Amino acid sequence: MDRVYEELVHQVNMLEIFKARRVVEQAIKRTHLTYYKMLSDELGTNLYIKHENHLPTNSFKVRGAVNFMAHVSPEIQKQGVVVATRGNHGLAVAWAAQAQGVFCNVVVPENNNPELNAAILSCGAQLIEHGDDFYEAQDYCEELAENTGLYYLRQGNEPLLINGTATMGLEIFEELPDVDVVIMSIGGGSGCAAMARVIEGINPHVNLIGVQAERMPSFYESWRQGKKVIVPSAETVAEGLAARSVFEVPYMILKDRITEVVLLSEKELLDGVKTALRYTQNLAEVAGAAALAGAFKIKNDLAGKKVVAVMTGSNLSLARLTHILT
Amino acid sequence: MDRVYEELVHQVNMLEIFKARRVVEQAIKRTHLTYYKMLSDELGTNLYIKHENHLPTNSFKVRGAVNFMAHVSPEIQKQGVVVATRGNHGLAVAWAAQAQGVFCNVVVPENNNPELNAAILSCGAQLIEHGDDFYEAQDYCEELAENTGLYYLRQGNEPLLINGTATMGLEIFEELPDVDVVIMSIGGGSGCAAMARVIEGINPHVNLIGVQAERMPSFYESWRQGKKVIVPSAETVAEGLAARSVFEVPYMILKDRITEVVLLSEKELLDGVKTALRYTQNLAEVAGAAALAGAFKIKNDLAGKKVVAVMTGSNLSLARLTHILT
Repeated sequence: MDRVYEELVHQVNMLEIFKARRVVEQAIKRTHLTYYKMLSDELGTNLYIKHENHLPTNSFKVRGAVNFMAHVSPEIQKQGVVVATRGNHGLAVAWAAQAQGVFCNVVVPENNNPELNAAILSCGAQLIEHGDDFYEAQDYCEELAENTGLYYLRQGNEPLLINGTATMGLEIFEELPDVDVVIMSIGGGSGCAAMARVIEGINPHVNLIGVQAERMPSFYESWRQGKKVIVPSAETVAEGLAARSVFEVPYMILKDRITEVVLLSEKELLDGVKTALRYTQNLAEVAGAAALAGAFKIKNDLAGKKVVAVMTGSNLSLARLTHILT
Repeated sequence: MDRVYEELVHQVNMLEIFKARRVVEQAIKRTHLTYYKMLSDELGTNLYIKHENHLPTNSFKVRGAVNFMAHVSPEIQKQGVVVATRGNHGLAVAWAAQAQGVFCNVVVPENNNPELNAAILSCGAQLIEHGDDFYEAQDYCEELAENTGLYYLRQGNEPLLINGTATMGLEIFEELPDVDVVIMSIGGGSGCAAMARVIEGINPHVNLIGVQAERMPSFYESWRQGKKVIVPSAETVAEGLAARSVFEVPYMILKDRITEVVLLSEKELLDGVKTALRYTQNLAEVAGAAALAGAFKIKNDLAGKKVVAVMTGSNLSLARLTHILT
């Protein structure tokens, strides 16, 4: 199995990322990399935010989905795909599938954010609510794929997704070639791994800093222990970071390339949403604001540097936002 | 005096707008024009949002300020400028002035939004808090200009500001040349007037729909009565629309070009912020969400059309946001 993953790791590379860019730039617009003066003053650094929250479907995931859908085989084009998701991955795939006329099935747990479910449906996907949590939804998704011939599009170990996501990194270097530090949250790890590959390819001296929830330190523990670890199930307000383990391919890419992993308490994560609203006038989901919250936590390490914090997404429900503010 | 305004009206034209574009595109990035599927389904139309809220200083005003600052005379460059503002105009001018090394003084009323004041200060401007409301701040600003030699940069009747703002309209037509309807809020009227000139220059068949607060129908009444009207002082939640009169130059441009003016109740205005958060995952200030709220109000007139609602800004304080959500 390791051999298979190693082969997949090799398929995530600069050439494929440049090919992905040709595809992604046809479908979606570059996102803004915005300099924030007040945040920079607060942090004693030069802080830029990469606004992946402004993409269609409101998260970076759409980059990978667009790249995947541009390369589907005739079989997949005919049969369709199925994904398991709490939200961003499924919504991104549904959006990109609709644009390519690919039949898309999205399995979500039964208690999922209703606004996200509605958004997925609005992309013409079939929504299947099953299971009490993400892992049960995932099992059902696997079952469906086996029984129906739908292609199971996993979010973690698919090079086309990671290469597509990495176009975000190219945009950062094009606009700010002398960036010193990139901060990005880690859930399953594919977004951060995509960034790692671009850093390796363009300037390995750039520090890549990951951010996770204290309650769900799956990558952090794996990295510290030198092997892939599955952490206990736990509740965290950062749904986008609530992964009990990182995926193999992202782990293998990240383990020797990441500089530091910042762990955030639940309070720090929630405060991140307020910080984003207050200083950037952007709505961010909890995971989407985590890089910014992480920057505040390691402020001293960032002094005088050019720092990019990736705002990965903004799919936060009104109910959750109200709860955070009150 | 009318002769003076007529001359200024003539200075707002497509040639000057194209010149302004050369300046504006050097300083700031194009904003996204995003298609929203769920909103389109709800409205039975094709709804796009022009995201002026993503600009530096979080409002469209920065386009005009950048254009003005690129053309300051040596006297102004030496003496500096003074503006009166509740927020967006002053912040935009402070930002653009800092980039050009022009000394900038911003007069705000004493009870102004503290977050906006902090943002203005962060742009290196001098902040002067004076008066109980905008009109008292404005009087003091005028006094200051007379006594100090600072150039008083009025937001309404300055062709460089309006031409700069109009670059927003060019971007809309470039990306969506077959747009049918543009909806934009009206405070002092300069943003909407800028849009009107571009519509006149490119496709006069496009319907331009203005949105105002029921409590502050300054343009609406002027348009209806065929003469500039000053409406009584009133409270409205839409600070950006709280102008007791439109400015002369925008009025003269708009009066024969606007198709309709939608008046929104306080509740409809506040609901607009929630609609923006829910369907676009964007924070908008009350005036910034007014075009979207207006689209819901005249839904029947928009059936099947290609509609652009301009999200004009997002400078909403956390306190106000919390209040709206609870």
